[in-house]
Amino acid sequence: MTTSALTKVSEQRCFGGKQIRFKHQSAVTNCEMQFSVFLPPQAETEKVPALYWLSGLTCTDENFSAKAGAQRVAAELGIALIMPDTSPRGDDVPDDENGAYDFGLGAGFYVNATEQPYAKHYQMYDYIVSELPALIEAELPVTDRRAISGHSMGGHGALVIGLRNPDRYVSISAFSPICNPLNSPWGIKAFNGYLGDDQSQWIHYDASVLLAKTQKAKPILVDQGTSDNFYPQQLRTETLITAAEQSGAKAQIRLQDRYDHSYYFIASFIEQHLRFHAKYLAN
Amino acid sequence: MTTSALTKVSEQRCFGGKQIRFKHQSAVTNCEMQFSVFLPPQAETEKVPALYWLSGLTCTDENFSAKAGAQRVAAELGIALIMPDTSPRGDDVPDDENGAYDFGLGAGFYVNATEQPYAKHYQMYDYIVSELPALIEAELPVTDRRAISGHSMGGHGALVIGLRNPDRYVSISAFSPICNPLNSPWGIKAFNGYLGDDQSQWIHYDASVLLAKTQKAKPILVDQGTSDNFYPQQLRTETLITAAEQSGAKAQIRLQDRYDHSYYFIASFIEQHLRFHAKYLAN
Repeated sequence: MTTSALTKVSEQRCFGGKQIRFKHQSAVTNCEMQFSVFLPPQAETEKVPALYWLSGLTCTDENFSAKAGAQRVAAELGIALIMPDTSPRGDDVPDDENGAYDFGLGAGFYVNATEQPYAKHYQMYDYIVSELPALIEAELPVTDRRAISGHSMGGHGALVIGLRNPDRYVSISAFSPICNPLNSPWGIKAFNGYLGDDQSQWIHYDASVLLAKTQKAKPILVDQGTSDNFYPQQLRTETLITAAEQSGAKAQIRLQDRYDHSYYFIASFIEQHLRFHAKYLAN
Repeated sequence: MTTSALTKVSEQRCFGGKQIRFKHQSAVTNCEMQFSVFLPPQAETEKVPALYWLSGLTCTDENFSAKAGAQRVAAELGIALIMPDTSPRGDDVPDDENGAYDFGLGAGFYVNATEQPYAKHYQMYDYIVSELPALIEAELPVTDRRAISGHSMGGHGALVIGLRNPDRYVSISAFSPICNPLNSPWGIKAFNGYLGDDQSQWIHYDASVLLAKTQKAKPILVDQGTSDNFYPQQLRTETLITAAEQSGAKAQIRLQDRYDHSYYFIASFIEQHLRFHAKYLAN
């Protein structure tokens, strides 16, 4: 593998495939970024489609790779898993002024920041939508057939990015997503900080607003645990359900009895999400 | 559930079952111990058999529960997973004098220490063999049909405990076990510290010595990755293979091409280990 722009940090065998961590200099976030990739055994001999996974608050590229148990099914189905970080990183990257967990480092919210001092580095929307796939598809045995999923803040990211780019993603899923950040304490804090107080800019990053008005949403699968500490106040799943009904989109939004916000929940249902995406990635 | 001796720390739904963390005061290790349990859905209506999992150096009861992906298959097969800690803990418990990772806290080596200042608390052999199962079988819907497995230091523990107690465990497995601690730097340091310099006491805790001389070993399955940084010097798998040949035991000891020492290796093969144990737990 010739990887001029990518530096391999580690590689470990997993379910007959490869779990690899890379770092690279990002021209979009203006810092060094890390991401993880799982390449299934099929990638030894052919290019494979990819599921992009966006993680939640406080996570890095390693939470999903270590805890979700997704590689088993990805190896069976021949799907690469692409696991980016949740924010820019490094000494030059400004954090929340109080070091809070829900803004700044580990909390990029998958937006393009317009406010200072964040705008220089916090360009996670463009990083995920454009720079990272271009890099991966140029340097790894991965095709441009993409699906997108994520958890919590990353579920918000997956829904927003998938809904805004129906030509780039064949299917969308989410676990415990922040469905309506315009009306969620997490979302209001993040959008004020990254985007400023003009709420007309916020609606481009609100999954419920986007879904309600789209005519061409790709298939959507959402799982939400009923024992999730952040449900419903931060996550506002019901707003997304209403938006789905308004749009007529092909959306399954399921409440899962007594599951919480953790990776034990994700692990329990990730196989169903992978098989959902595989149907569309194969076409 | 009435749990007079057990205090529930947390409970999370997982694959239709329950991932639970308990703490309790141990009369054997003379401190408060934590352990984790996965109860499969079947345990709602009947008692289920159990696989005891012993973790490796630096681990707690949480590594296997978060990273191995074992709950999926345990839920299917109706097996409880019992995940103890790797040492006594607490302010009163002496650690390695230099705080090393391979002795003291997180490194109990599943022995009954005879040396001071360790003997008062480091009684992990008796804790795993006797106190913990008695507590679990009295207070949880778990039968006394037990299998045992583990990783690295915990693979050593599983082999030693299983081989010394064939009446208490129906089957034994291990990932990357320390097979011959008498001749391993990790084992020599631990046994000197916990057991003193009389090597006649060490042989009771050496899986290769025990296996070579037993006539009644239960079925054994061992997986060892060939790209494991600790193989062969610390782990000495070949010594166990020779011992198995000498004993005529029903032992499968497999080298797995290019796998390393990590949980990505364990996750890749845990399903095979669970199905191996299930055959014997069902009888």
